[in-house]
Amino acid sequence: MIKVGIVGGTGYTGVELLRLLATHPEVSLHIITSRSEAGMSVSELFPNLRGHVDLMFTVPDADQLAECDVVFFATPHTVAMTLVPELIKRGTRVIDLSADFRLKDAQEWEHWYNTPHTCPELLDLAVYGLPEVNRGQIKTAQLVAAPGCYPTATQLGFLPLLENNLIDPAHLIADAKSGVSGAGRKAAIGGLLAESSENMKAYALAGHRHLPEIKQGLNLVSSQDVGLTFVPHLTPMIRGIHATLYGQLTSSIDLQSVFEQRYANEPFVDVMPAGSQPETRSVRGANVCRIAVHQPQGGNTVVVLSVIDNLVKGASGQAIQNMNIMFGFDERLGINTIATLP
Amino acid sequence: MIKVGIVGGTGYTGVELLRLLATHPEVSLHIITSRSEAGMSVSELFPNLRGHVDLMFTVPDADQLAECDVVFFATPHTVAMTLVPELIKRGTRVIDLSADFRLKDAQEWEHWYNTPHTCPELLDLAVYGLPEVNRGQIKTAQLVAAPGCYPTATQLGFLPLLENNLIDPAHLIADAKSGVSGAGRKAAIGGLLAESSENMKAYALAGHRHLPEIKQGLNLVSSQDVGLTFVPHLTPMIRGIHATLYGQLTSSIDLQSVFEQRYANEPFVDVMPAGSQPETRSVRGANVCRIAVHQPQGGNTVVVLSVIDNLVKGASGQAIQNMNIMFGFDERLGINTIATLP
Amino acid sequence: MIKVGIVGGTGYTGVELLRLLATHPEVSLHIITSRSEAGMSVSELFPNLRGHVDLMFTVPDADQLAECDVVFFATPHTVAMTLVPELIKRGTRVIDLSADFRLKDAQEWEHWYNTPHTCPELLDLAVYGLPEVNRGQIKTAQLVAAPGCYPTATQLGFLPLLENNLIDPAHLIADAKSGVSGAGRKAAIGGLLAESSENMKAYALAGHRHLPEIKQGLNLVSSQDVGLTFVPHLTPMIRGIHATLYGQLTSSIDLQSVFEQRYANEPFVDVMPAGSQPETRSVRGANVCRIAVHQPQGGNTVVVLSVIDNLVKGASGQAIQNMNIMFGFDERLGINTIATLP
Amino acid sequence: MIKVGIVGGTGYTGVELLRLLATHPEVSLHIITSRSEAGMSVSELFPNLRGHVDLMFTVPDADQLAECDVVFFATPHTVAMTLVPELIKRGTRVIDLSADFRLKDAQEWEHWYNTPHTCPELLDLAVYGLPEVNRGQIKTAQLVAAPGCYPTATQLGFLPLLENNLIDPAHLIADAKSGVSGAGRKAAIGGLLAESSENMKAYALAGHRHLPEIKQGLNLVSSQDVGLTFVPHLTPMIRGIHATLYGQLTSSIDLQSVFEQRYANEPFVDVMPAGSQPETRSVRGANVCRIAVHQPQGGNTVVVLSVIDNLVKGASGQAIQNMNIMFGFDERLGINTIATLP
Repeated sequence: MIKVGIVGGTGYTGVELLRLLATHPEVSLHIITSRSEAGMSVSELFPNLRGHVDLMFTVPDADQLAECDVVFFATPHTVAMTLVPELIKRGTRVIDLSADFRLKDAQEWEHWYNTPHTCPELLDLAVYGLPEVNRGQIKTAQLVAAPGCYPTATQLGFLPLLENNLIDPAHLIADAKSGVSGAGRKAAIGGLLAESSENMKAYALAGHRHLPEIKQGLNLVSSQDVGLTFVPHLTPMIRGIHATLYGQLTSSIDLQSVFEQRYANEPFVDVMPAGSQPETRSVRGANVCRIAVHQPQGGNTVVVLSVIDNLVKGASGQAIQNMNIMFGFDERLGINTIATLP
Repeated sequence: MIKVGIVGGTGYTGVELLRLLATHPEVSLHIITSRSEAGMSVSELFPNLRGHVDLMFTVPDADQLAECDVVFFATPHTVAMTLVPELIKRGTRVIDLSADFRLKDAQEWEHWYNTPHTCPELLDLAVYGLPEVNRGQIKTAQLVAAPGCYPTATQLGFLPLLENNLIDPAHLIADAKSGVSGAGRKAAIGGLLAESSENMKAYALAGHRHLPEIKQGLNLVSSQDVGLTFVPHLTPMIRGIHATLYGQLTSSIDLQSVFEQRYANEPFVDVMPAGSQPETRSVRGANVCRIAVHQPQGGNTVVVLSVIDNLVKGASGQAIQNMNIMFGFDERLGINTIATLP
Repeated sequence: MIKVGIVGGTGYTGVELLRLLATHPEVSLHIITSRSEAGMSVSELFPNLRGHVDLMFTVPDADQLAECDVVFFATPHTVAMTLVPELIKRGTRVIDLSADFRLKDAQEWEHWYNTPHTCPELLDLAVYGLPEVNRGQIKTAQLVAAPGCYPTATQLGFLPLLENNLIDPAHLIADAKSGVSGAGRKAAIGGLLAESSENMKAYALAGHRHLPEIKQGLNLVSSQDVGLTFVPHLTPMIRGIHATLYGQLTSSIDLQSVFEQRYANEPFVDVMPAGSQPETRSVRGANVCRIAVHQPQGGNTVVVLSVIDNLVKGASGQAIQNMNIMFGFDERLGINTIATLP
Repeated sequence: MIKVGIVGGTGYTGVELLRLLATHPEVSLHIITSRSEAGMSVSELFPNLRGHVDLMFTVPDADQLAECDVVFFATPHTVAMTLVPELIKRGTRVIDLSADFRLKDAQEWEHWYNTPHTCPELLDLAVYGLPEVNRGQIKTAQLVAAPGCYPTATQLGFLPLLENNLIDPAHLIADAKSGVSGAGRKAAIGGLLAESSENMKAYALAGHRHLPEIKQGLNLVSSQDVGLTFVPHLTPMIRGIHATLYGQLTSSIDLQSVFEQRYANEPFVDVMPAGSQPETRSVRGANVCRIAVHQPQGGNTVVVLSVIDNLVKGASGQAIQNMNIMFGFDERLGINTIATLP
């Protein structure tokens, strides 16, 4: 059993961490913090947890957090970077679900997040927590930066193609559709059901913050700098990301085999049979990325369909997958749940 | 470990049984039948089960089913009654999720289902599987009739009031709202998203088949025959029942205490704190009924709010709860999952 | 052609007024105000109006508003009562969509709205704008208080029964289901799609502000003070109210005829054929209330189903219906649109 | 006033034709046919039409249809081609909303629709009813083939780029998202709310029937045969298409001006201001295509966002727009409605 703390438990990734950790056999939930809701019981805010989680929200306290074996940050960006240095100093392991430690280049980070980074010295220490790429480093990491939701779906879809030099890296397109929970649990008119139901729209055409994260990840395996056009869309559903990825093939090969081999030993990437069209509901609530690869009409455009639950494999589930790896547990422990369908 | 069979696995209660049984530590899934899909792998029809369920659908066969310790029927009404007699004869225990064995009066059944009952002699043998009422009988039952979804939410809400003679049994009103999965996985124009999304409507005003089931259950604890007006509504969501129950109080009492005491030892009924308004999403995917009791403006009308997931506590979860009781397992085993929220 | 002004045009009733008034043949849109969005073009905020409405939002100015023949207030409560006295003094006619002038009793108003009423002397002047009750007074009214959404659906459903002394006024139940646009266009976590989609819940059990308004209206036609239990529910859709109304019959009569006769000459109340179950989508975007009356199993409980679009017959459409009456136009002018289905 | 007939009025394009034609000042609805519902009143099937449309469905009869000035076919493919030749012979004008006359090449048609074409001799006579391309020919056409929904959104988005030789025609990508009403009003499990709500999926990767239609249209203005990858997606909403179009720029130019000039005189194409991201709800129920053009990060990939209501500008509204042109009415007559928002 390890002692686990959560900083910022009032958002969607927070409640999802709680849902999954509450039944994890190796985890003892020790502390969950929220400045705004300190003193309120967690299950009052999230009634689904009634009978399962007895904790109350408390004000974050470095001493208490340092008692934990691992602390998850489920906070908006810029929060983790103020507390993490102290925890790192004290030897507590940290898994940050926010964007604070995802980019290696502090200047790039500051450009996209429009604020100074207060501990750029930790960026090198941080391991990017995409197990399908960095499993080895994650095992011993003290600080893991859990990937964003779009970056998870997009990288897992493009990786087999770029690693094998099968597509032109200069002309990648990621057309991604996300449920609205990706915007977080915060009061905003745009997220109202009355605004976003029965509606479809693209957003952030000028540049989404996940763009540099995706490019950083793809560049590591690409023969040359990737050129990526990334267009996210808001879809009238709560959970789910459907990334539709386009590339120009540079060689002829059995794409199905390439994908199946790449992920043969991955517990949480499911390459669907040839001809499949994965649905986001098939991963709802589950820590899995389902992928299908197509070559429509036998042309030279490859289309990869990659679906995840943005709050699970795209956030909290993947964060726990990292925890399992870091502490030597079975990687599937506590997160091998089956999607709820319908 | 017990051997489990499922007859009729292609509907929503079937896939929900599979989702829950696949990770039940005392269950070995032995057989799942479907005439229409025989030969197809279960996970091809329900991709959420990929990696978790390896079975194929087979044509129902009494010999194979009789090898099971228990057989679930997740079939439309009239199917179970043709197969169950044979299984009962061979000593196999049966949990029927359909309506075939819910009513004790064969004539009543034939009136509402408009077809002859082919094994009325089993109606007495059948135990109505509402654990909060019949736990004792369920333990030794060979045949359990799992309650319908509306009847579960409605009876659990009215029971404390009627058992304690607190309301006038002659004037009960149940205004119930259900998600569309209650109509089953069958092609019908009315269930199309284009027809039922962004829409609310009442239906079956003339008489819903769950009405006699509810009245039968309530009459068992009522001082006189209940008069019940039951108005179901179709709500634009997949899962969930919200029953809003109205009664005329005949005495003054601390209603909150009555409800808390009635369900103090029930693992799957959660009486919410006074003033609460339970949400269906707080039970989504979970085998729990959350209840709140109100007396608006201190008048003599009591209002009970009772929510369940129609596919879990209203069907497959409750069926497994019955199984746990029948086989002496911890009643919560395999079904103590936390609702997914958001 | 009359000159029309709108105060508070950034909410849902505001944009709905604009949608309907923009094509009204007797209306010239003169001014639309919003403190927060002053200087922005209306069609930038509401792109559906591009090419149809050229106005910009301006800061409310009494002089400019007084130039209008009629001014609509589409504001939160307490705003109209600060501006209306001045407009009344200058002879401008006013239609207030907010709650400021709906209740005749200032103390009652202050109790429910928890703030002093600043012009109680106007409450008697105000005509409650339910045309099916007050058409005569509306014609000459200088100040109309347009009814709330729940009150419209509920009163239209109960009126024929109470006017004819057919039910016990002491035991009325209104179980109402509303789409989320009823909560208005304001940033609030509870209204997020991620919170309110795939969810059903009751709210305001302790007392909703529409309760005194409904009771005031029903008391006018009831032989004794009505006792009403009103339970509103939040339904996962944008538009629509479905009121399910229950009463105890005190005499035997052809209810269908009663309803048909009551509304025979009403252009915007549609009594459906016997046995019907009206759907909210059948009135989406249209200024009509569709009603059906049932007597389930021939018992003594009458059930009335009453559906409206909360933003049209429940707000902006009905406000324009009042305007048409006030200015002697054909009552249907500009609001006789057909619901969009699907 | 012209006499109008509709063949096949029980589907979504049928009821949408009725909604729009019922208030068209130059149209007298003469006849509406349906084999399956003959004898039923139209407003019984579609209660939104109560009080607006008095017709009953009748069995299609060539003599009666020939009395009309124009007959709309709102039928599944292969129905129109059996009746249209007779009507053409008799001099009745026809607007076919189905696919029967969209492709000029009969062999291509037979390949995609997998059945013989029974009147290929009419394919040359048929005018493809995209007013933004063929307005001149539509004026005098006897037979108009109204475009499909995806083809409308996609062609209007690509046309300015291809007509001006601004992109490489060999590498076009159309990633399109459609509401489920596009699948029509037919009983099918995949269209159930319980299946398609809270879900996103691609479909028809192997080749959608709208692909050859789009290519045929684009080839007419392209310097070389277009290479198009078309991936449609099913989106959990009733109405709306959002086409996200990608092309590789071959020259540098002010794209905003190109689009604004191309559609300057088009009443139903709205080029949004630079930087806009049109939402499908801004065209819900309205006969308009809203378009925005982007060049993310100043790269050489152009992204066009094109939204329509699939049942209006993508079907029935556009069909009436054709009718207005054919009969010399103001092109906007009866279809210049404002989208309902929210």
